[in-house]
This record gives sequence, C-alpha cells and structure tokens, in this order.
Amino acid sequence: MAESNLEVQGYIVPSEVPTHWYNIMADFPEPMAPLLNPATKEPATKEDMAPIFASHLIDQELSTERYLEIPEPVREIYSQWRPSPLIRAARLEKMLGTKARVYYKYEGVSPTGSHKPNSSVAQAYYNKLEGMDKVTTETGAGQWGASLAMACAMFDLGCEVYQVRASFESKPYRRMQMHTYGADCYASPSDRTESGRAMREQFPDTSGSLGMAISEAVEVAVKNPKAHYALGSVLNQVLIHQSVIGLEAMAQLEAAGEGTADVVFGCAGGGSNLGGLALPFMGRELRGEAPRHTRIVAVEPKSCPSMTEGEFRYDFGDTAQTTPLMKMYTLGTDFVPDPIHAGGLRYHGMAPMVSHAYHLGLMEAISRPQDQTFAAGREFARAEGIIPAPESCHAICGAMDYLKSGEAKDGEVVLIGISGNGVLDLPSYDAVLGD
Amino acid sequence: MAESNLEVQGYIVPSEVPTHWYNIMADFPEPMAPLLNPATKEPATKEDMAPIFASHLIDQELSTERYLEIPEPVREIYSQWRPSPLIRAARLEKMLGTKARVYYKYEGVSPTGSHKPNSSVAQAYYNKLEGMDKVTTETGAGQWGASLAMACAMFDLGCEVYQVRASFESKPYRRMQMHTYGADCYASPSDRTESGRAMREQFPDTSGSLGMAISEAVEVAVKNPKAHYALGSVLNQVLIHQSVIGLEAMAQLEAAGEGTADVVFGCAGGGSNLGGLALPFMGRELRGEAPRHTRIVAVEPKSCPSMTEGEFRYDFGDTAQTTPLMKMYTLGTDFVPDPIHAGGLRYHGMAPMVSHAYHLGLMEAISRPQDQTFAAGREFARAEGIIPAPESCHAICGAMDYLKSGEAKDGEVVLIGISGNGVLDLPSYDAVLGD
Repeated sequence: MAESNLEVQGYIVPSEVPTHWYNIMADFPEPMAPLLNPATKEPATKEDMAPIFASHLIDQELSTERYLEIPEPVREIYSQWRPSPLIRAARLEKMLGTKARVYYKYEGVSPTGSHKPNSSVAQAYYNKLEGMDKVTTETGAGQWGASLAMACAMFDLGCEVYQVRASFESKPYRRMQMHTYGADCYASPSDRTESGRAMREQFPDTSGSLGMAISEAVEVAVKNPKAHYALGSVLNQVLIHQSVIGLEAMAQLEAAGEGTADVVFGCAGGGSNLGGLALPFMGRELRGEAPRHTRIVAVEPKSCPSMTEGEFRYDFGDTAQTTPLMKMYTLGTDFVPDPIHAGGLRYHGMAPMVSHAYHLGLMEAISRPQDQTFAAGREFARAEGIIPAPESCHAICGAMDYLKSGEAKDGEVVLIGISGNGVLDLPSYDAVLGD
Repeated sequence: MAESNLEVQGYIVPSEVPTHWYNIMADFPEPMAPLLNPATKEPATKEDMAPIFASHLIDQELSTERYLEIPEPVREIYSQWRPSPLIRAARLEKMLGTKARVYYKYEGVSPTGSHKPNSSVAQAYYNKLEGMDKVTTETGAGQWGASLAMACAMFDLGCEVYQVRASFESKPYRRMQMHTYGADCYASPSDRTESGRAMREQFPDTSGSLGMAISEAVEVAVKNPKAHYALGSVLNQVLIHQSVIGLEAMAQLEAAGEGTADVVFGCAGGGSNLGGLALPFMGRELRGEAPRHTRIVAVEPKSCPSMTEGEFRYDFGDTAQTTPLMKMYTLGTDFVPDPIHAGGLRYHGMAPMVSHAYHLGLMEAISRPQDQTFAAGREFARAEGIIPAPESCHAICGAMDYLKSGEAKDGEVVLIGISGNGVLDLPSYDAVLGD
C-alpha cells in the first residue's frame, strides 16, 4: 500500500491505491458458517454457483486468503478517483464544539457518486475476462444499477438492469444515467422473463419489489450461458472489493499523524460500505498488529433494524428465496420495511461477514429514525459543503449524537464513513425536512 | 505552489493547493480597456462599485498585481476537494485510436459538482470579513446559486438567490440544494423588489430572464447597507479566483512528466472555466518563462457564439443595462440564444479578460452545435465513467473532433477542461439524445 504520504490540510491523500483487497475471513477468531445449498442444506459448492457468477468471483466468495491481488485494469480504473479523500471535518467540529478530531472518508467523488463502483468495476472485469457478453442485475433506487452500467461501459460489456417499477417510474434520473452508459434498463416485473410475466399475471397492478427484480435478473443470467448475474452488496466478494475504503483510511489516518481511529461510524444496510470501511481496522487488531482499540458502530435505520432487532440465523438473500442460504442477522425475507428514502438500507438481512463480526462482539450496532438522520445530514452539509446520501446520513447521525453527548474524550479520533453524495436524493431531503 | 508531486496512474495530484491566485492583467502585452461608468463614460471607480461589491473584491477587480494571496480560510476550504484531479484519459485515447496523450482537469469533485465554488467561497469570505449580513445573486439553471449558497452556509452568511422562474419551476433539484444549504431562493420576477413587481405588472405571464433576476438581486444589495451582490462569471475577480484550476493543471502536468500542454480545450460561456484553466498557461508564456507554445481553443455553443460571431466593443453585462460597461465580445444585450441545455453558456457576452486575449490573437475560438456536444459527452462518459456537464461537453466535443481529425501529432499533450459533472443534467442528455 501507501509508501509515501502527504497531508493537504483537510484532504489527506496517501500515495497509492491499494494493490490488494483485504479478506477478513483469514482473521476471524472463529470461522464463518458456510453458504448452504437450499435444496441439499449442504455447503454450497463452486459448481452450485457456476451458472450465476464468474469463476474468479466464486473463488473470492469462498476464499480464506487474507490478501487478494487487485488486477491491474481494475486498479487503473480505481485510480481515477481513488484514493478517495479522507477529510478533516474542521467546521463540523467547531459547530459541535467538540474537542474530538473528526474525519470522514468520502466515496462521493466516484463517477456515479457512491462507493458502489469499487465492486462493479471488479465484477465487470472478471465477467469480461471470462468471455461473458453481458451481466444482469436488479436495482432499487438505482445507485448500484448505475454503477454496474458504468463499469460495463468501460469494459465494453452488455448490462441488463431490472429496476423496481416504482423507482423506474418515480426516479427517472438513475434510469437516464444507466441509458447514458449504454445499459438496458427495464421496469420490473417486466414481460421479458417467465417470472416477470407470472408476476404480472398474478398482480397486474404491482409496482414491483427488489425480490422480484432479483428473480428476473437471475433468470436471464441462468438461461444465457454468456451472461452472469451481479450483486452490489451482502456477498463476501463485494465486501472484499470494498475493503479498499478501509485500507486507504488506515493509511490516510497514519499519514495525518493520528495512528488509528478511536471510533468508526458506518451506515448499515446490506453492509457493503460499513464492511469495506471497518473490517480492515478490525482485522489489523485481530491479527495482533495493533492493540484492540477501535470501536466500530453500525448505524441502521430504525425502520429496518437487521442487527439491532433481527435474529442471527440462516435465511435467503432474496424474497423469492432463490439464493443460497446465508447465516446472517435478518428480519425475515417477508419483512417489508417502511418506505424510507435511504433505499440502499432497505434490506431485510445483513452481510454475513458483518453479521459474524457483530455476533462475535467485535462491533456495536444502533438505529436511528429517518427524520433525525436527514436533519443530521443537513447540519453536516451546512458545515462541510457536501450533501450526503440518505444512507450516509445514518453514519453522520450516529457520530453527531455521540459527539453532542460529550462522551468523546479530548483529542479522540472519530471516523465517519460517507458512502456517497445525495445530489440525486434532494427530493428526499425536501420531503422529510420540508422547506 | 506544489513543491513535491506524485503520480497515481490516471489521477495526478500535486502536493498543495496554490497559495496565490494568478491575475493575467500583469502580463498582457497591451492593457485591457477599463470598465466604464455608464452615466459618465469615464473609467469606473472603486466608489462607483462600493454599493454592490465588497471592498476587497473591487480591489481585485481593478488589480494589476500578478499574484494575489489566497486567504487561509478560503484555502482551507479549497483543500477539501483541491487540487482537483488531473486525469489521463487512457480509455478515451484507446477508443479514439489516437497517439496523443489526453488529460482532463476535472472540477466535478467539488461539493456542488462544478468549478463555481472556487469563486463563491472567496466572495462569501470577503463579504463576511467586511461585516455583511448577506449576499444576493441571480441564477439560471442553478449551478452558481447552489455554489454561493454552500459558501454562505460555511461562513454563516445569509444568501438570497433570484432564480429565473422557468428554471425555478422546471429544475427543482437545484432549488432544493440551495434550501438544504439554508439559502432563500425566489422565483424571478418576484414581488419582493420594485423591479420585480414592475416586471410582473407589465408581463403577468413572464417566465423570467437572467437580466431580470440580476436587476432584482442588485436592487436588494444596493438598498441594504449590510448586503452585497455576487456574480459567478465574467468579472476579472471571478477569473482570478478560478486561476487555481490552471495553476494546478500546470503543476500536475509537470508532475506527470509532460512539461506543458500542446493544446488546451475549454468551454466558453461567460469565460470563468476557460479563463481559470487557460490564462495561467498563457501568462507563463507572455512572461517568457516558457516558449510560446500552447494553443488555447475556446469552444462555444453554435447558438450563442460570442467570440466566433460577436463584436468586440463596450457593452453592458446584463440585459437590464445596469452594470458598468465592459469591453468584450458580445452578441448584444438584446440577443436571445436558443434554449440550449448548457445553461451556463447562454450568455450574450464574454469575460473581458478572455475577450482581450482573443482580440490580441493569443487564443482561438470555435463553435459546436448542441447535438454534437451531447453525443461527444456520452462517448466520453462511456470511456471515462464521468458524465460531463453540458457546458463541459463543448470542450470535449472540440477536443474529440481534433483528435479524430488526425491532426494531433504522436505524443502531443491535449488538455480538456471539464467544468463539472452532469448528474443533474441527465434530463438534457435524455431530451437531446433520446434513448
């Protein structure tokens, strides 16, 4: 990783994009429970997953190696916006009157405005490498769909996105973004798949669901030998790709002379941003390379509290119950969260890696209601200029409550994960906070 | 400026934000024609401008000093996103089959997604320093209004924006962005000013105009001793603030081992992005510190071709004819451009600094029609991931035509100014290019 470093006041940049992704599987004190084949209840094999995912990605999904080399073409694309900035929140500190030292790791500088390209670029790369013609995926609000569309354009790979019909119709910007990148985007349920047609017949007026869109995307991939499916969160491979966030943040904090963070706040939906940011910190301590020190706090939506109110058990990843079974904190596949605006956090489960860490007591979790998170996001915007994504507002809200409580000691280092910017989410700010 | 530098593959970062702005007034071989007081036709004095602008900003407007120190609080804010990335367009080069080395200087990483905060932060700072309670401005599409609103939030300064009614109603995102920062935003003509009320009486159904909005913003500033007016382009002070773009780009090209650029393409509306990027290159050669070498090419909209089809003469900056007279390339204050989507380029005139340079033969200008610019922007997005702002698409279009023509020599260094990202302009892409 970073050899030489430099500090530019608030914006701290280490010299290099990481050369390897980090996989916490190698460092957990107890192994994670395996994925199960739902038919046999036996551990899922590479063969089980071959119709759906690229071979390299399945290897990553099952890998227990600590460091996985980032292929040069992926690293080259990362280098367009990575290392992403680590920024000292000097004006926020002043506004809150805290003597803690507050930093945020900001993923909103990527071309699509979030951390999602960290995985979409890798997934597109491996699928192209293995001769696929296209990848398919589902998307809700569209952040993941747009990021996969971008990555596919870069590798000249087809991209077929099934977008929940309600979002397709009410949030046209993300669809236009996918089109600009050359992706095909269909309102789901569509008439293009068997599962879509069956759904439309049964519920002619449905506005769709994430579970339905997954079923359509998986069906297209399974039926086409030159197509695979891609997922933007939850899976081990995704959290491994996202580890660049935390690896960079550790190097940047060292470059800033801080050593490490005392507390890390991350937003928790499927777990990709939180896991990417926090697990490298956790792993360093598990390996004994640093003393056990950094508190990691996941901040969930009150209306979708997988860790704070869910159960730790095997469950499906999708509502249609077609995925391998995963051991995770879950509210159950039939859980329907309130229609909160942080679309990226409306998921019934939690990434198995994050769930395992939480189960082992290696991290904490809290939840916050929507209105408080947007209010915190607006305070942050007025201090720091960046309007955070609704998902990121959760991390900010948790951190600000902590800083306002006076619990933080003088000089304590607080790190906040900002998963993206909220420019396309301004109507949500408007709806929740009014004028 | 930058002492030590580093190269991170495509993304090149010099070590420091510039400590000084650059003012080409010091280096022009012939002096610029002064601003004139429209009543007396005499050169405008500091006193003439005192009711409208902060004292420090008037000094900058009239300054002939080469380097003006950037106040530390402004530089600290710049450092959140500056130095902005200079990126090697490796995939674009491959797509075009060119042997030129293509770079772009990308301003879309700022919190509001464009270069506008480079000046809004400075203007807000000086107004706060001089005890103002608020600043007023006009905005069309909203890029400038949002950037000024952000800067005012950072300095705890009031901000009152008059937005052209048509945009206020059809482009709600920018208005919501201003509200999130705590600014007041009114559809213009409003009933809050004499000029607004007069306009509404005369034309009850008007959808407003930039000229009308300027009149309202200036009226509020002039009538309130604790308020000043702020402008986002055209003025010398704005081009001076924007010089950080070019100063950084020069240091970054040196860091990349390129020496300098052979050709620079910039989009030209009011001139703030083009001037900020190109004038530091021009000045270095005018001072004899580098051989005369770099071609500078302004790319205008075909429908608003100030330099390529306008006259070089004294004219007003606004349609209501209330500003000082400026010697510039102009289409006349009564020129009404086609309703192109690059709102930032729909201006009848051109910054006097850029106009003077063009008049002296120090740069070139070309124009491109809207459909070609969006098509170029989409090609760029598919290669580089970034969806450029419609204004930036003009610079890209000019550069891509040049690169496709085969005129560029092997190894030639081509620099493109990307003024911002086009995330909030996706409906314009959709409207012009369709699905």
